[in-house]
Amino acid sequence: MTHDNPNPDALLGLGFGFWASKALLTAIELDVFTLLGEHPHRMEQLRDRLGLQQRGTKDWLDALVSLGVLERAGDTYANGVEADAFLDRNKPTYVGGLLEMANARLYPFWGSLTEALRTGQPQNEAKFGEDFFAALYQEPLRLEQFLHAMTGISLGAAHAMAEKFPWDEHSTVVDIGTAEGCLPVALALRHTHLTGGGFDLPTVAPIFEKYVAANGLANRLRFHAGDFFTDPLPDADVLVMGHILHDWGLDQKLLLIGKAYAALPVGGALIIYDSVIDDDRRANTFGLLMSLNMLIETQEGFDYTGTECKDWLASAGFRHSYVEPLVGPDSMVVGIK
Amino acid sequence: MTHDNPNPDALLGLGFGFWASKALLTAIELDVFTLLGEHPHRMEQLRDRLGLQQRGTKDWLDALVSLGVLERAGDTYANGVEADAFLDRNKPTYVGGLLEMANARLYPFWGSLTEALRTGQPQNEAKFGEDFFAALYQEPLRLEQFLHAMTGISLGAAHAMAEKFPWDEHSTVVDIGTAEGCLPVALALRHTHLTGGGFDLPTVAPIFEKYVAANGLANRLRFHAGDFFTDPLPDADVLVMGHILHDWGLDQKLLLIGKAYAALPVGGALIIYDSVIDDDRRANTFGLLMSLNMLIETQEGFDYTGTECKDWLASAGFRHSYVEPLVGPDSMVVGIK
Repeated sequence: MTHDNPNPDALLGLGFGFWASKALLTAIELDVFTLLGEHPHRMEQLRDRLGLQQRGTKDWLDALVSLGVLERAGDTYANGVEADAFLDRNKPTYVGGLLEMANARLYPFWGSLTEALRTGQPQNEAKFGEDFFAALYQEPLRLEQFLHAMTGISLGAAHAMAEKFPWDEHSTVVDIGTAEGCLPVALALRHTHLTGGGFDLPTVAPIFEKYVAANGLANRLRFHAGDFFTDPLPDADVLVMGHILHDWGLDQKLLLIGKAYAALPVGGALIIYDSVIDDDRRANTFGLLMSLNMLIETQEGFDYTGTECKDWLASAGFRHSYVEPLVGPDSMVVGIK
Repeated sequence: MTHDNPNPDALLGLGFGFWASKALLTAIELDVFTLLGEHPHRMEQLRDRLGLQQRGTKDWLDALVSLGVLERAGDTYANGVEADAFLDRNKPTYVGGLLEMANARLYPFWGSLTEALRTGQPQNEAKFGEDFFAALYQEPLRLEQFLHAMTGISLGAAHAMAEKFPWDEHSTVVDIGTAEGCLPVALALRHTHLTGGGFDLPTVAPIFEKYVAANGLANRLRFHAGDFFTDPLPDADVLVMGHILHDWGLDQKLLLIGKAYAALPVGGALIIYDSVIDDDRRANTFGLLMSLNMLIETQEGFDYTGTECKDWLASAGFRHSYVEPLVGPDSMVVGIK
């Protein structure tokens, strides 16, 4: 914001920011980008294919044009470059799964943010005695879609981590809470000497194995079934925990870091990555809001600064640690045993 | 968005934009900025005064710091310059009323945007057979707060219009749908030869008269009670319709423009202002989304481009018209009879 001649435009833009956000989320819900991934459509075709009536539809599409999400030539709409790469369900780089969940679940749940701050209680299905994620893990098809969405989200960080860590000094890596195996696959494709795999709940096994085989890595990466609270972690030179620690309270965070320390050899590394908050807590807006999302979604979870995480690593016995940015709001915190 | 090396960050930022938006709206709901308008508060004081528990509260406040809304020194939070001017309820420049309404009503209603596009039907209280605005106009205190919020929203446009129209060529002005009278007061304060007033529903009279008297203009501005669909409009050299036309369908828009034409002298002017959409419908995001908000809030309302509005003015008989930007997303369309 600029302060020379204060005006309320920036505040109004922020306050009404949910309009643009919901316009995009509804487009993902209606699968506009998959349809336009087939070929550009004229307005009326698009309306017919989407089952929409006339009122407001052009405003909505043109708002997405003005936001750079869609492109329009004459009366014909096409995907913008990013939307085509990341919101067309038929492309492997689809990240819409997370935004589908944001639309269906988080948008309404965040409507209770005030109550969350007053009570400290989650505002998701837990309010009604349900456990969304437990239910998700019981439904193989939905679980596969969800874990694939996680791949879309983690791919950028995985590629960055493949470049920014001295993998030539290590032979084996296991990703804790691996989902499809996005991270170990990216690492193994880039560094052909690496072997290892991923650790996750047993129901994830076939989904991991399918993804790894599709990437031709079944001979180098294998699945380790387990629960990271009740089972020991696999041995490896490097263990990775991505978008895991922030789901849990401090005691559980320390427990997980301690279990990683126990599983690593001397000289081994634990790589933690999340939307790590800057130490002064005034730059990484997404990380701060992600932490607030942990209030909405979990009993005790929170995001954290690099220094907080380094302190936890030190208290678990790691002799050295450092923070390095990966991509977007994500950074990794590396602890060396 | 940049396309050299497509990444999903901009799409994810837009899709999750409701997080930052709701963080601000909740702060307005809890009246954080009025409290900090008294004096800066330490975190714990602030939490106590707001009745909040510990979990997530610091994340929420620091997210507002990262967004430039709040400032923080050590553990002490203060309003940013804009928040202090526009979100402290005790200042005359408060615009939070509109955002309070956005928080309490529009945020949940926009959750049904997909249904709105499928059905073309409003998604506000009308879904349940209620009429929010009719009820509002029956409650004097709430109405006064609402109309005062409208003043906050219109003040910037009113000041711009005071500079950007040749008021020295005209003697009288009446603002149609005037609310508190923000616009005629701004014009009359800047141009001491102007007289006139505001036209609105009869229940608005005492609120208008209080605001006009507080500005020392009771001798130059008077209230005209009426319904702009059933009563003739007052005579004046200049009639103004601000944030009015977009609430209505095309037939009613044309009816209102025709009634203004009938009331004006030859050489008189109708000034229409709204978040006028650029003719190519690809620049004024707020105007396009405001039009989508008319889908959510009204039976037939929509926003429009400058050229559309000029066409309507021409069809009503206005001999000349032009579009001129005012402030932020608002422009005025001027028709000369």
